[in-house]
Formats: sequence, structure tokens, C-alpha cells
Amino acid sequence: MNKAPKTAITPTRVDDYPEWFQQVIKAADLAEVSPVRGCMVIKPWGYALWENMQRVLDDMFKATGHQNAYFPLFIPMSFLEKEAEHVEGFAKECAVVTHHRLEPDGKGGLQPAGPLEEPLIVRPTSETIIGSMYAKWVQSYRDLPILINQWANVVRWELRTRLFLRTAEFLWQEGHTVHATSEEALEETRKMIDVYADFAENWMAMPVIQGEKTPAERFPGAVSTLSIESMMQDRKALQAGTSHFLGQNFSKAQEIQFQDQDGNMQFAWTTSWGVSTRLVGALIMTHSDDDGLILPPKLAPSHIVILPIYRDDEQRAAVLEYVGKLREELSAQYYSGRRISIEVDDREIRGGEKKWHHVKRGVPLRLEVGPKDIDKNAVFVGRRDTGETKSMDRDQLVADVVGMLDSIQTNLFDRALKMREENTRDIDNVDDFRAYFTAKNPDRPEIHGGFASCYFSNEDDLEPLLKELKVTIRCVPLKDNDTPGTCFLTGKPAEKKAIFAKAY
Amino acid sequence: MNKAPKTAITPTRVDDYPEWFQQVIKAADLAEVSPVRGCMVIKPWGYALWENMQRVLDDMFKATGHQNAYFPLFIPMSFLEKEAEHVEGFAKECAVVTHHRLEPDGKGGLQPAGPLEEPLIVRPTSETIIGSMYAKWVQSYRDLPILINQWANVVRWELRTRLFLRTAEFLWQEGHTVHATSEEALEETRKMIDVYADFAENWMAMPVIQGEKTPAERFPGAVSTLSIESMMQDRKALQAGTSHFLGQNFSKAQEIQFQDQDGNMQFAWTTSWGVSTRLVGALIMTHSDDDGLILPPKLAPSHIVILPIYRDDEQRAAVLEYVGKLREELSAQYYSGRRISIEVDDREIRGGEKKWHHVKRGVPLRLEVGPKDIDKNAVFVGRRDTGETKSMDRDQLVADVVGMLDSIQTNLFDRALKMREENTRDIDNVDDFRAYFTAKNPDRPEIHGGFASCYFSNEDDLEPLLKELKVTIRCVPLKDNDTPGTCFLTGKPAEKKAIFAKAY
Ligand SMILES: [Zn+2]
Ligand SMILES: [Zn+2]
Repeated sequence: MNKAPKTAITPTRVDDYPEWFQQVIKAADLAEVSPVRGCMVIKPWGYALWENMQRVLDDMFKATGHQNAYFPLFIPMSFLEKEAEHVEGFAKECAVVTHHRLEPDGKGGLQPAGPLEEPLIVRPTSETIIGSMYAKWVQSYRDLPILINQWANVVRWELRTRLFLRTAEFLWQEGHTVHATSEEALEETRKMIDVYADFAENWMAMPVIQGEKTPAERFPGAVSTLSIESMMQDRKALQAGTSHFLGQNFSKAQEIQFQDQDGNMQFAWTTSWGVSTRLVGALIMTHSDDDGLILPPKLAPSHIVILPIYRDDEQRAAVLEYVGKLREELSAQYYSGRRISIEVDDREIRGGEKKWHHVKRGVPLRLEVGPKDIDKNAVFVGRRDTGETKSMDRDQLVADVVGMLDSIQTNLFDRALKMREENTRDIDNVDDFRAYFTAKNPDRPEIHGGFASCYFSNEDDLEPLLKELKVTIRCVPLKDNDTPGTCFLTGKPAEKKAIFAKAY
Repeated sequence: MNKAPKTAITPTRVDDYPEWFQQVIKAADLAEVSPVRGCMVIKPWGYALWENMQRVLDDMFKATGHQNAYFPLFIPMSFLEKEAEHVEGFAKECAVVTHHRLEPDGKGGLQPAGPLEEPLIVRPTSETIIGSMYAKWVQSYRDLPILINQWANVVRWELRTRLFLRTAEFLWQEGHTVHATSEEALEETRKMIDVYADFAENWMAMPVIQGEKTPAERFPGAVSTLSIESMMQDRKALQAGTSHFLGQNFSKAQEIQFQDQDGNMQFAWTTSWGVSTRLVGALIMTHSDDDGLILPPKLAPSHIVILPIYRDDEQRAAVLEYVGKLREELSAQYYSGRRISIEVDDREIRGGEKKWHHVKRGVPLRLEVGPKDIDKNAVFVGRRDTGETKSMDRDQLVADVVGMLDSIQTNLFDRALKMREENTRDIDNVDDFRAYFTAKNPDRPEIHGGFASCYFSNEDDLEPLLKELKVTIRCVPLKDNDTPGTCFLTGKPAEKKAIFAKAY
């Protein structure tokens, strides 16, 4: 089968990457903009993907000793005022509730009424409201550690929004933990960034770099922020998860104190960590191609779609019987802890349209079954990741299906890693740096740049250059980063390398 | 073992039922009030119970053809204005977002800034925002039905709040469906109240009556509201779930139209249905006793707690080895589709305190294991529902455990049903009605009344009496309600009986 030169998605990645992203989402029916400024509607196929992500992450959190709980949506304004850096970071972009009812405005419409004594903020993150409860719960070292996670919606007012990547409301989880010692809190911070890296690489098939944020890029109020950074196909970086060591900043602001084993009062040490529906955006941009979405099998809501092909009722009966048995044998098997999930699409629409529908939705394996396939005890198999198609013996397929899904999962990771490695460069001078991050076509910048791995001595020295090139320091990698060098810009001694990139 | 006359919860149900309820929640560490007026914090044990409820309900929704999706938290004020009854029902109690940032107030604090052009309402329910999307998605009869559910938080400003039963913010699911015909939408409405009744009875062990709400008690904007009603141990009714047939009210207000098979434009027929964290309150009030929470095994986060008992390190090693093997064999088994979940509480606190801790948390089975039990190859077993304790052969316990859990589940349902039946009366005259719903002690009303099953002809006729007695019509039962009679108040001919009760 020759692949037509025309792609299912217009424009292609090379032609217009941001617009390609929007069109992939639309073609796969993952989400839509809503009439509420900046808020998205996550449609069933997109939400099922998020649910699979949630389930795996939730199991990982529980396996590392965390429990779920739920805290209020609203934060009293005065709570935000307590941690100075925190309020600075979030006050500029929050939804403020000021009234608690509506009344007729006398012109046939409504107007807000019942002003609140103290305005409430729709949580942009929950350190302050959760911390206020922890201050009550923690009395003694015996109450520690507290290891709690919350699945919730949060709101950060954003002017420029993009589905999944940056929306006013998004869904996420936020872990908030309290510890007796700095060491234990630091260990938690590192443990959770490890969990995120494990999830990104082994479930999303998305390679990531674990690193520490520089001071200017830290979470507002944190002592240290760790992140996982991933390269999208336009070679920009996407921060996919963060884990914050909050030191005693929040415990002092909120008086989270405990009596230690010697009877002395101590401020506790806290952490917070989160990933969000942004991961869905990262997954799309990591794997999809010019024909639409590609889903890693471990997270795909459906692993397989079967398309029965027939001309008349007699053929239909035979094909559906064959398909039914095939489905049964396939779905009796498990891949990666989940029963193999199979759709049979028997809608009365044209075969080509139907096939492309599922290509665009990113279903990992497509099986076509017609009378000729039955005669040969065969199935026509299409792999979404490579586009490869072939006729396979039906029993062989049943025997091999788990291996085939795993081969797709592995291939997706491998090619994403290859892409990142091909687009990562060690750079040790400013001319190369500038050239790397400058498009050849300034009017319609082509995909360019990537990750630059550079020694740097001082964040402030770099600011003008980074601003000019719209490049950011993504992180100081935690691994293989112990040999000192010299700053690529100033030539000063530098202890560590950082990853520089344009970013989402 | 003699049960001490003193109960673990003070006051008892008879002494002060509302306060008993609060104390059960506190003793089981299920939830707490938060510093945000009317909003609760759901603590890990309470949230784990809610998660189990969610998982079962979610499976039931999917088994009946529904998919999950997610819609915005905010509703533009103008959307609420479109459906007149709906806005009337919700405008008086909603959180209104009017600003999108905070700025310094010049006095060291903050003040709202960036006024919104149009205020946003934090969803009290999502018919209007979801309907606005459905209006886009529905073009042709081929697009129908739409069968979508959403798990979400909602906010209804409440002045008098009670944990789980009535809070400003609560968690729920809301199903919203669109159909081509009235018949199909009515069938969906009935199907979902059946699902709720199935869940309440077979998972929560809480008997319910399915019925239709009278016009004054309907959901604002609905043509018909079905509900499930349950009797709490103070004999008051609690509405545990509702399913609404919305007719074409919302589709006309929001222009959800489709082209039918003949090419004519038609307004669609919609439904909505929901249950909330209120179910947790219902579960507590249905089963718990004066020693605290009692959890039905099918939903209990832990089925069993094992308490190792020892005096020294040598005993400890032997006991923990015995306990470890016991745990392994028990947790290899499944009860009601879930692996048997076991806690081992080896904390260094006094045995009595430890035992009562788990009694108050409602864990269905408590196993105590000390050196003497090991000598007899036995386990000391306590059943939470009956308080019964006995020594059992260890292998017998392993063989019987599923049956024992199921016996607890059945017993909880049976005794709740018995309680309801003992406190339900057919009443055919106003004197009996008045006596039934009047406490003997008006100053400190004792637990009294219950469900009254009465013929009635017209809701409006009853209003003064019901208001006086603080009684409401709970529902017109769907089953066994086809024989006409005469109204208990007016003597007019009446088609149906209704259930009357004081209610939460
Ligand atoms: Zn946080
Ligand atoms: Zn609703």
C-alpha cells in the first residue's frame, strides 16, 4: 500500500507546528475551546487518556506511601498574603470571588449581589489552604510525615491560552508533604521527581531530563524546584512536572510546628509536587505525526480498533462472527496490567473515511477483516506508529499481540530519544549559541535550535542574551554534571552545565 | 467479653443525633470543617471511601454506555439567564467571580483588580455550560444520543452547612445526555435512577425508595425529577440521588437542535442525573452506631485490620511472622471484585486504645493475634457490625473470610431495611399524621416519626400543614402505587400515595 503524499493533518509539523498541534487535537476529538475565556472542554477521547494517566500516577503515589484527600477550591485572600514570594507569583493571574449571589439588575438581567467580607481566590495551587490545615494536624513528631496528594482543578488567569498547554482552568494533582527534617523533605522532593520521570519515560514513552531550576525559574516560595524537561518535535522544551522543596518557608508563614523528641518546638519542612493535563499536550507533541495523534499503547484508551469489511448481509454475518471471536481472544489478554481494550467500528461509513478516522485518533493497532482475510485465516494489520501494514495469520496475531503493542511502546520512546539526542548540542561560546537559537528565516521561523548544554556561572549575566533570543534555562541536570568548566558567555569558572532551550 | 456500658461516641444517637453524627465523623477522621466558610476538608479515610464509591459508580456508568468528559468550572452569567426556572433555583446561592487579579491595596494588603466584563459563576450544576457545547456538537440524528458524565466539584452557597450533607463546595458526578425522542430520554432518566438504587442497596447496603418528585420539589427547569430516598436512623429522609427528565426546556433555551431522518429540524430531549459526597453522609447515618462508624465491606477502604499483640521482641518476631502469613493468605482473595484489603496496626500504643481506634473507624473485621492464639493456631475475631467476638481456627478464618464479609454486608442492609419498615406507616387521616410527626418533648424533640405513606390529591392543599410540621413530600413511589384512594387531608380522590417525612 502506498502512502498518499497528502497528509491527514494540514498544515504539517514543518509548515506550521503550533497550528498542526491544534489540528491534531481537533482531528482526534480530544478537546475544544469553551465559551468561557481560556477554559477548555476535555472531550471523551481526551479525558479517557487523562484517566489512564491518573490511574497509573495514582498507583505510583500510593506505592510510595501517599494518600489522597480533598481541600477547598477557595483560598481566603489573607492566606495568600502570608508568603510574600508566593503571592507575588500568583496574585497577577487569579480568579477572585467577591459575591455570593445574583439578583435582578432591573433591566431584565442579573448582577452580582451579597458582597463577601473577604474575597476568595479560586486556588491557583493549594500550599496556603492545605498548609493551614497541616498547622492544626501537626503537633508532635509522631504526626509526621504527612504524605497527602490531591486530584483537583486549579485556575490561573492566562491571557494567551492553548489547549492542554496553557489554559485558565486545568486539571492536576498536587502532592503536599510535611517532614520533621530537611533531609527527609529533600528525599521526598527527589523521590517524586523520580516518580514523574518514571511515568514520563515508561508510560508516556517520553524521554525527560531531570534537573534543578535556577533561582529565577523556581516555584514562588520554594527553596529548590526540580523539574522534568522534555523535547517536543519542534525542538522546544516542555516542563512536564515539578517537585518543590519548600524548606521552612511555608511552615513559618503558616506556623506548621511540632514538638520534637526532645520536647523542643520546631518548624516543619514541606514539599509540593504536581503534574497536570499539560502532560496530554506533551504526549501529543512528542509522538504525533502529520497524519494525526499517535498514542503510546500503555496509555491508549483503546489498544486496537477492528474494522469489519463486507458487501452484503451474508458477508456481514461471517465477518462479524470472525471478528467477535478474534476480539474475545485478544481482549482476554493483558498488556501492562490492563486488559487489552478493543473497539469494533461497524458504523455504516466508507472504509477509507473510517480508517483515517482511527489513524487520526491514534489507536496503536488497526485490524481490518474482510471475507478474503477469513479465507486465509488472516487479518490485515496496520501499525499506527510506523504506518506499516501487512497481512498476518490470525492465530499468530493472537499470540503476538502483547509483543506488538510493546514494540510500538518501545519504538515511540526510542525515536523520541533519538530526536532529542540529534537535537542536543554542547555549546561553549556565544557565537555558536546565538547561531543555534536563531532561525534562518526570521519572517516565518523554521523549526530550529534544540537543547543546548552549556556551562554557565551566573544566571543574571545571561539575562540580556536569553531575553534577546527568547531562550530560557530549562534546568541544571542532576545526572552526569559534576565536572566544572567555564561559562560559555563570560568565560568565568562554572560548576555545572545547564540545558538551554526555547520553551512552552 | 462484656461490652462496657460507656459508648465510644458521646453523645449517643438517642441523646443528640445531629451531634452524634459530627462526633462519628471526627472519631473516624473522615472530614473537617475548613477555614473557608462552608467548605470541608475530606481527610484520607473519608476520601478513600469516596474513591471506592466513585470507582463502582464509574464502572456502572460505563457499563450503561456513558463516557466521561470535563467541562469548565465557570459559567458566564448570561448562560444562567437563559433558562428562567433554572436561574431562579440557583442564582440565590452561587459564588460569583468578578475580578481576575489582586493588587496591593496601599495598606500592606491586597484588593481585587482587573474587573471582568461579564461575571462568571462557579458552577452550581452544569446544564447550561454543557448544553452550550452540546448545541454545537449536535447537528444530525446521527450525532445522538450523547451520553456523557462528568466528575467535578460544584459550589452552592449555603448558610447552614453540615459535613458531607450540605456544604458550599461538594464533589459529585453529573450525567448529561441528549436524545432524539422523549421516550428515549425518559428511559435514560429511569435507567439512571435504577443504577443509583442498585448502587445504594447493593454496595452501600442502604435501602432506598425510588419515586418521582412532586412539582414543587423538582429540579429547577426539569419536567420530571426522580429520586432515591433513604431513611436515616433518626427516621428522617435523605435524598441520595436524582435523575431529571428535562424535556425540551434546556434544548430550547440553548438551541440544541438536530435534523431528523426526514430532514426536519427538531429540538432534542435532555436529561441530567447526579450523586454527590452527600452519599458519604448517608452511609454514615444509615449504619453507624454509638461506638462510631460502621462501613459496609464492599466499600470499606480496608476490609480487615490485624492487631499484633506481644510483650517482648521474641514474641514480636513470632507474632509478626504469623500475622504476615495470615495477611498474605487473606489478601490473596477477592471480595466483590476487589482484593481483600488489610491493615496491620503495629504502632506502639496501648491495646485498648488501638482497638477502639479501629472500631471508631468502622473497619468491618478486626483480628487480634497474640502468642496464645498462635499456640492454638487461632485468631481472635471481632465483627464491627454486631460487636460479636470469638476465637476462630486460623485456617477456618482464611476459608470463611469472604463469606464473613458478605454476611456483614447483608446484615447491614437487612437491619437498615428492618429499621425503615418498622418506621413506615400508612396514614389516612390528619390527626394521625399530626401525631406521627409531633415530638412528645417539644423542647428537646426525641427521635420520632418516620416515613408516612399517604394518599394525596393536590400538593398545594397540603402546604400549610407540611410547613407547620416541617414535613415534606419525599416522592411518589414508582412501585406498587397504582391503586387510587382518597387524600388523607382533604378526602378528595387521589391517584397515588406519596412518602412524607422530615428530611435532610
Ligand atoms: Zn502545590
Ligand atoms: Zn446537572
